[in-house]
Amino acid sequence: MSRDKLVIALPKGRILQEAMPLVCATGLEPEPAFQDPQARQLRFATSHPDVDLIRVRSFDVATFVAFGAAQLGIAGHDVLLEFDYAEIYAPLDLGIGICRLAVAEPEYLSQTDEPSRWSHIRVATKYPAITRRHFAARGVQAECIKLNGAMELAPALGLCQRIVDLVSSGQTLAANGLKEIERIADITTRLVVNRAALKTRPEEVGAWIDRFRMVIDHGR
Amino acid sequence: MSRDKLVIALPKGRILQEAMPLVCATGLEPEPAFQDPQARQLRFATSHPDVDLIRVRSFDVATFVAFGAAQLGIAGHDVLLEFDYAEIYAPLDLGIGICRLAVAEPEYLSQTDEPSRWSHIRVATKYPAITRRHFAARGVQAECIKLNGAMELAPALGLCQRIVDLVSSGQTLAANGLKEIERIADITTRLVVNRAALKTRPEEVGAWIDRFRMVIDHGR
Repeated sequence: MSRDKLVIALPKGRILQEAMPLVCATGLEPEPAFQDPQARQLRFATSHPDVDLIRVRSFDVATFVAFGAAQLGIAGHDVLLEFDYAEIYAPLDLGIGICRLAVAEPEYLSQTDEPSRWSHIRVATKYPAITRRHFAARGVQAECIKLNGAMELAPALGLCQRIVDLVSSGQTLAANGLKEIERIADITTRLVVNRAALKTRPEEVGAWIDRFRMVIDHGR
Repeated sequence: MSRDKLVIALPKGRILQEAMPLVCATGLEPEPAFQDPQARQLRFATSHPDVDLIRVRSFDVATFVAFGAAQLGIAGHDVLLEFDYAEIYAPLDLGIGICRLAVAEPEYLSQTDEPSRWSHIRVATKYPAITRRHFAARGVQAECIKLNGAMELAPALGLCQRIVDLVSSGQTLAANGLKEIERIADITTRLVVNRAALKTRPEEVGAWIDRFRMVIDHGR
């Protein structure tokens, strides 16, 4: 068995705040520097001598885990759907980060629009792969403009009329005069593992899956 | 001539702090909400009745300007090189955001490595297009793993041995045991415009280019 430390990849930002109570409940306390969002440090020791944490962009969690650079990670189902990495196994729904991936368009347009008649649409999204797949399944060609954020600006600025984005309360859509017209997927945050690591280090990786599962079951 | 407002796209984050004194020196004062980094608002009025600002991710500035959703923008030369949009004209170097795009690898490896002998390398980078182009020009095939941040983690975690990233002081590289071995490009921040907007609204767009140029010339 490898004596390398296990690495768990955590997503920066909004989800991290929801995820940390779960991580801590498994017995993993990160070193103090982890709390400093401005720290140059990218990798952190924990109270467990065999486990380090890395804090990376939510999309990068999937890449680090898929390539085996991290053995475990916490990633949104949206990210997993977008990359669709065969090397990632997602054994556990953490029940946090609850939202949905949806199609939206300007309120005024939604009153007369007929999505069933679309043959080609232009969409601004952070999720071009999911979007193309979703629409291709019903014969609609989706031309995607990849944006990393602020998709809600696109319709008012004439970039395109539709967007595909994560929607939680819907307040951001409403504030930008947009209306949700179609739900693509319900999204939650998952515990993910690298499949090869699960085979080569089954006791270690399996033990952490079990700990997270106990925390989740206990919280229900 | 269109009576639509002009939209100027500004990049979130580090560059924004350097860019705002220049923007303000042209006579554009954003509405107060612009100062609030947590605001849901994405588009902001200014002291100039015909100009709005949007604050988007640095990579998205290029996309908004290329598609004409913003007529002007402030973008790093790194972003312009990566997308290589024909629709973008970059008339002015703003002299801020000075850094370089460089190849780095672990310090221990750099002592014996011979880049002139590479035929295939694996690289973690936010800039796959630039990286492939740079290496292809000397016959090296670069297999790129796209990351959105924290590239410096990749070598120590076994993802790959080389990274291509922006380097400023070099402190982040050093803190991760990495050494810069090759410079790909010198980077600064540019004023960019949509070519079609410059043709259809030449007085307005041209006047803002001139104002930024005067600010820059004055500062020298």
